[in-house]
Amino acid sequence: MNFKSDNEAPAHPLIMQALVEANQGFATAYSSDRWSLRLNEAFSRVFETECHVLPVATGTAANCVSLAELSPPWGAVICHRVAHIHNDEGGAPEFYTHGGKILPIDGAHARLEPDAVAALIDASGVHGVHNVKPAVVSLTQATECGTVYRPDEIAGLAEAAHQRGLALHMDGARFANAVAWLGCRPAEVTWQAGVDVLSFGATKNGAMTAEAIVVFGRPEWLQGMERRRKRGGHLLSKMRYVSAQLLAMLDDDLWLILAAQANRRAAELARGIEQCPHAALEWPVEANEVFMRASPQVLAALKARGFEFHVWPGYDDLARLVCSWNTEAEQVSGFLQALNELRA
Amino acid sequence: MNFKSDNEAPAHPLIMQALVEANQGFATAYSSDRWSLRLNEAFSRVFETECHVLPVATGTAANCVSLAELSPPWGAVICHRVAHIHNDEGGAPEFYTHGGKILPIDGAHARLEPDAVAALIDASGVHGVHNVKPAVVSLTQATECGTVYRPDEIAGLAEAAHQRGLALHMDGARFANAVAWLGCRPAEVTWQAGVDVLSFGATKNGAMTAEAIVVFGRPEWLQGMERRRKRGGHLLSKMRYVSAQLLAMLDDDLWLILAAQANRRAAELARGIEQCPHAALEWPVEANEVFMRASPQVLAALKARGFEFHVWPGYDDLARLVCSWNTEAEQVSGFLQALNELRA
Amino acid sequence: MNFKSDNEAPAHPLIMQALVEANQGFATAYSSDRWSLRLNEAFSRVFETECHVLPVATGTAANCVSLAELSPPWGAVICHRVAHIHNDEGGAPEFYTHGGKILPIDGAHARLEPDAVAALIDASGVHGVHNVKPAVVSLTQATECGTVYRPDEIAGLAEAAHQRGLALHMDGARFANAVAWLGCRPAEVTWQAGVDVLSFGATKNGAMTAEAIVVFGRPEWLQGMERRRKRGGHLLSKMRYVSAQLLAMLDDDLWLILAAQANRRAAELARGIEQCPHAALEWPVEANEVFMRASPQVLAALKARGFEFHVWPGYDDLARLVCSWNTEAEQVSGFLQALNELRA
Amino acid sequence: MNFKSDNEAPAHPLIMQALVEANQGFATAYSSDRWSLRLNEAFSRVFETECHVLPVATGTAANCVSLAELSPPWGAVICHRVAHIHNDEGGAPEFYTHGGKILPIDGAHARLEPDAVAALIDASGVHGVHNVKPAVVSLTQATECGTVYRPDEIAGLAEAAHQRGLALHMDGARFANAVAWLGCRPAEVTWQAGVDVLSFGATKNGAMTAEAIVVFGRPEWLQGMERRRKRGGHLLSKMRYVSAQLLAMLDDDLWLILAAQANRRAAELARGIEQCPHAALEWPVEANEVFMRASPQVLAALKARGFEFHVWPGYDDLARLVCSWNTEAEQVSGFLQALNELRA
Repeated sequence: MNFKSDNEAPAHPLIMQALVEANQGFATAYSSDRWSLRLNEAFSRVFETECHVLPVATGTAANCVSLAELSPPWGAVICHRVAHIHNDEGGAPEFYTHGGKILPIDGAHARLEPDAVAALIDASGVHGVHNVKPAVVSLTQATECGTVYRPDEIAGLAEAAHQRGLALHMDGARFANAVAWLGCRPAEVTWQAGVDVLSFGATKNGAMTAEAIVVFGRPEWLQGMERRRKRGGHLLSKMRYVSAQLLAMLDDDLWLILAAQANRRAAELARGIEQCPHAALEWPVEANEVFMRASPQVLAALKARGFEFHVWPGYDDLARLVCSWNTEAEQVSGFLQALNELRA
Repeated sequence: MNFKSDNEAPAHPLIMQALVEANQGFATAYSSDRWSLRLNEAFSRVFETECHVLPVATGTAANCVSLAELSPPWGAVICHRVAHIHNDEGGAPEFYTHGGKILPIDGAHARLEPDAVAALIDASGVHGVHNVKPAVVSLTQATECGTVYRPDEIAGLAEAAHQRGLALHMDGARFANAVAWLGCRPAEVTWQAGVDVLSFGATKNGAMTAEAIVVFGRPEWLQGMERRRKRGGHLLSKMRYVSAQLLAMLDDDLWLILAAQANRRAAELARGIEQCPHAALEWPVEANEVFMRASPQVLAALKARGFEFHVWPGYDDLARLVCSWNTEAEQVSGFLQALNELRA
Repeated sequence: MNFKSDNEAPAHPLIMQALVEANQGFATAYSSDRWSLRLNEAFSRVFETECHVLPVATGTAANCVSLAELSPPWGAVICHRVAHIHNDEGGAPEFYTHGGKILPIDGAHARLEPDAVAALIDASGVHGVHNVKPAVVSLTQATECGTVYRPDEIAGLAEAAHQRGLALHMDGARFANAVAWLGCRPAEVTWQAGVDVLSFGATKNGAMTAEAIVVFGRPEWLQGMERRRKRGGHLLSKMRYVSAQLLAMLDDDLWLILAAQANRRAAELARGIEQCPHAALEWPVEANEVFMRASPQVLAALKARGFEFHVWPGYDDLARLVCSWNTEAEQVSGFLQALNELRA
Repeated sequence: MNFKSDNEAPAHPLIMQALVEANQGFATAYSSDRWSLRLNEAFSRVFETECHVLPVATGTAANCVSLAELSPPWGAVICHRVAHIHNDEGGAPEFYTHGGKILPIDGAHARLEPDAVAALIDASGVHGVHNVKPAVVSLTQATECGTVYRPDEIAGLAEAAHQRGLALHMDGARFANAVAWLGCRPAEVTWQAGVDVLSFGATKNGAMTAEAIVVFGRPEWLQGMERRRKRGGHLLSKMRYVSAQLLAMLDDDLWLILAAQANRRAAELARGIEQCPHAALEWPVEANEVFMRASPQVLAALKARGFEFHVWPGYDDLARLVCSWNTEAEQVSGFLQALNELRA
């Protein structure tokens, strides 16, 4: 009864099968194997445009290799105050950018708003070399609060960024959940809306350990990204095993099927919480994360009954419940039943 | 009629004289000259405790060499949102700390408040390696708004920092102005209040280019600081010329005399502005900086009359007026007369 | 007929089985899973002393996180001129150490010699802050030339290093091959000989992607290493899959069995080459790498017959032939037959 | 009787006079003063081409800001094994380049040779991201051994570098001595020979503390250089004092007059040493440094008589004698007389 994180879920059987199939004979090392060499084409097909793809093993690597290429050391990355790159990567963006700066801003439901972004850019860097230089806007899709940007919202951010010479990066650790929820084509929320580089997450969505940097049509960034990936120690010698996972994810839309499954469970959780008198949803549930307000007593009682989840840092009455591809309907109904049995 | 910055003032004649005197014959290079070798003793005398002093040519060097020693690359430096290290050093702290992070907080009159500092520390780093680790609290004395911390305020910050394992750094670009205004002993607002490392500024106060890192009784930091100074290119071969300026500043309290002079002019300005119906002081004037609210029309008219000052970034009705050791009473009275002649 | 690299071999079936077994249900993220939590004990058993182990996905990560902890940014790492960290990691050590310097030295058969190491240390750093400060000696076991350090050779290096205040790091990408060839206890060539930190390689030896930083009895290094691993993006969320591979490797000495298998094939290759009139061994074959001198014509002819190997950079008559756990006796005999059929 | 270093000499009276003259009234801060604004023109006149000039206070800053702009973090800087950037800057180039690598090579008389440079470049980087990427060739003029590159030698290096996509940097800490000795136009040994960026040294040549980065016709490098200067803490607020020194140096060829004076003394020393039976010149004396072989007994006896000089690291019978603008003929004759009075 684990609602702690989609990072705690196992890999999907089809991923395991792909690994077993990739485990035949020799394969060229360092991303020149035949799985890795198929990535550009596979992603280009899914995104309906020419993509350049660098596989890596972690989302932090995907984000930071990207940000370091998009921002000079004296650059600034604008993101939401709750962004993973700002709070949860232990300073990795600052490490990879060689001392770049993150400028966090607020926005309802963990979403950046174009006006706020534009205002921050316009107010920054006015003193030339005395200031850092805004270089990238990074948004998280789905957000850290389990909400989802609509295509036009992303387009608004892209416009604010591009008009001012900044690039637009998307941290897509839960990109699949967002696309599954929106029901749109992946292109619509990425390059067509102005995203320049996407960190495409698969690990949380049922892979073992596989993420991809997806560059939309700016090949001049690739050399630096490849150098940075190598220098970060993220050019795996046996990269075929990462790439095989990514290919398996894209095959027959497995990535969307798994994400939709997790989203469905989250939606069930949300409906149940809404109907419970002593619990409430903190934010709209649009992906696979549910943020539930309930008294500390209720949260403690749920934990005592064996339900695992994180109480949000800085709060004692806000629980994050994450559904994964393998969260079962019975887990959700069991949780809701327990919740309803408790008193506020 | 320059009120733009104390950085625009010339060096005091006694500083020039010290340079001329230092310019005799050969002297050992790289800070082993007889001027540099006297610094520890001279500062120890002024601060009434054992000091270890590293001369450098810029305040940014003093701040960043210090912060890099006090914070690991994964550390965070807590400072006020308007702090120079956060806004005006072009990312130098992030460069020198190898990607450390600055966590800015608010506080009235540009002053950090112990409770806010304590709360931020306590809320940070709770997720271990996923978060950066607060390592230093850095305060500016006098502040970027021209206000001054009292000894007990500093002690409160020191307590909040030290109890939680953080060091306390003071950016003293205008330290002299603060001490002159407080009328206290330098020890009272530094090590006796808990300051671990002071960036002692002389340049803004009538030196040509001379700053000092003053370490209070923690010699284990020196090796790293000396290495960082060298790697930053701040170990001047002919360091005697920096050290001679610092010694001249400390001799016969020149540093306090010059600062008091600048403060006096600022106080005159402040009094005049308070009496003017179409201008107002934004913050208490406690050092040599005056922040004046007046309509954009008034500010433009003053500029048209040849008065030079900065309109504060993000505002059109807030002027910063800085007095230097060489600001003359006539300049101040001329400014006030012009201000009064204008209509709101 | 691939002799290009042990990086091109697949994972051993027992590794795949371990991954399948680890793929059951939820597991705590970020190295707090029950596989990762068993690593310290498992390695401590194999090395007969208390070990602290940090799993990572690549050898570059293992090496660089270690070196960055053992050397300050102004430090120097002494290694052999052909060392992987100097030539093949794209500057990763310099990135992780924040600008540390590698000081390469020569030595027969890719082995460092204590006298040369001692002399270099003694000659370095004599000008204090003007020089970088030697901080680490890093040796590769087995070496990049396929030779192996004996325990007393390592002890000699350790003495040279430790007496001068340097730490001793071992890049053990092919550590298993070295231990299998020496037939000694792992302790004898590591901590008992003075190694402080070992990069324990499993990937080249039949894992999918699994390496470990093994710290021998210096827990004060762990905090920094954990921070650096995180900042490098090498704290995998689903670390269980890396740790499960490592545990499987140690179980029933799989790591030594696989390495011995690869070594055996290399020894067969070596014997055959020695007997061939138009080929010669460049260096003693002590692990799983064979360096063969033969005319460019011979090398080209072998390639034309479908044998894959690297011609050594800077040479046209030196081939590197690597055997893996899955290199078959028939591959070796086929290669030797083809070699013998060729004319010089 | 100081022959230790030209860094130990005082500033020339005309430099002091320039500082006094610059010390009048207010001047815009941060290199926008009227002295700094004249630098481009003044250097362009001397070098007979459009120059972009960034003043800084130290040679390390000039070198490292330049190298960091010319090389990416994964780049390599090729220089002579005795180069100051490799041996004497405490790792500053590695710090500023964010982990770039220095590849030292040998060459007679501390001079790089085009063939050796070309061979090293051609042998480096052949493995793509696994290797660092040679990005800059840096030569020192005059060299660390007191020899001087002829224009055609520089052109040869430039050709080797440029044909392979590398930039050519000149560390001109003693550039004036080289030009004075060559008797050529400054243009001939810089941009006309292919130098892209020059670190123009004035400090060793009689300034107090003043160096300049001189960029020949590649304005696209300026933005990054200005950012790096700021982040390094080398954008002095009162830059007028550095710029005034540089202008004074260029006025009426003071820089060449002072350098010629120092060279003349060195030549006198060299002639005397050549005639002494128990001493010998180690390298040709072409600038202001003299390297003298003599027995340890002779060197000790000279020191005992009050002559100050450095015994070269790693030797006990090699002395470096440096002449400065203020070295007097009597000092030289006194030294030679003492030398001749000694027995071998």
